[in-house]
Amino acid sequence: MRGWPTPEPMARALTLAREAAGAGEVPVGAVVVHRGQVIGEGRNAPRGHHDPTAHAEIVAIRAAARALGNERLTDCELWVTLEPCAMCAGAIAHARIAKLYYGASDPKGGAVEHGARVFDQPQCLHRPEIYSGMGEREAGELLRGFFKRLR
Amino acid sequence: MRGWPTPEPMARALTLAREAAGAGEVPVGAVVVHRGQVIGEGRNAPRGHHDPTAHAEIVAIRAAARALGNERLTDCELWVTLEPCAMCAGAIAHARIAKLYYGASDPKGGAVEHGARVFDQPQCLHRPEIYSGMGEREAGELLRGFFKRLR
Repeated sequence: MRGWPTPEPMARALTLAREAAGAGEVPVGAVVVHRGQVIGEGRNAPRGHHDPTAHAEIVAIRAAARALGNERLTDCELWVTLEPCAMCAGAIAHARIAKLYYGASDPKGGAVEHGARVFDQPQCLHRPEIYSGMGEREAGELLRGFFKRLR
Repeated sequence: MRGWPTPEPMARALTLAREAAGAGEVPVGAVVVHRGQVIGEGRNAPRGHHDPTAHAEIVAIRAAARALGNERLTDCELWVTLEPCAMCAGAIAHARIAKLYYGASDPKGGAVEHGARVFDQPQCLHRPEIYSGMGEREAGELLRGFFKRLR
């Protein structure tokens, strides 16, 4: 059965996730797109960078904000292979990301449709438009393969 | 009326918060302490650094992890002048911070005792010991003064 083709930014995020796995990091990748251009990329790197905040989304958001010279990514989209955690969802709100696209949902660590549900809190200052499921199968397979090899 | 003297790490965090205010940033400061030594410091800097993730806690945690050469801050304490937001609470959990001390509680943006209550989620992989209230009065006055000047 064929689904929709994976959109180009999600395909790039999946490539970054594979790079993370190759470096021994949990395979998650992310890109920030501004007016059709990728302006920031990231893959999970907490172990390699000795940085507990170095999730794919944070790395991509920081790169994009540096590229724009602005801490607000008002007209930007974030594409990420996995449902963001509380830290990353908080960063997405602070950055004023306009649209969030994520692949696989994450019942164990996600904080968009699970757990802390950061964007659903009345306190949340900014809620992006949220789309999910693109690239889901491949993102999930990457993660399952990674954790299977760890056992 | 006299209260307890402000513990030294919180006094340092308050100094960092005042530096943030002087730089036109929301006055929040943080330090990470490891075995009695400050190994990471931070103050709010999202505007100046063009980095939406540059909250005091994130800056301090990244510096501490760099100093230890480890993404886990297992034996560390984080002292911060304000109740952490969802992003920072998530980072504290990822970093495995042992003890969290914060000054003022933050009903508008806090995610420890308010809103997303990140550490109370069953998914949360690590919950630090949490202490609050030290330096509360001064931390609160700094923030109120800052936002008053903005109006």
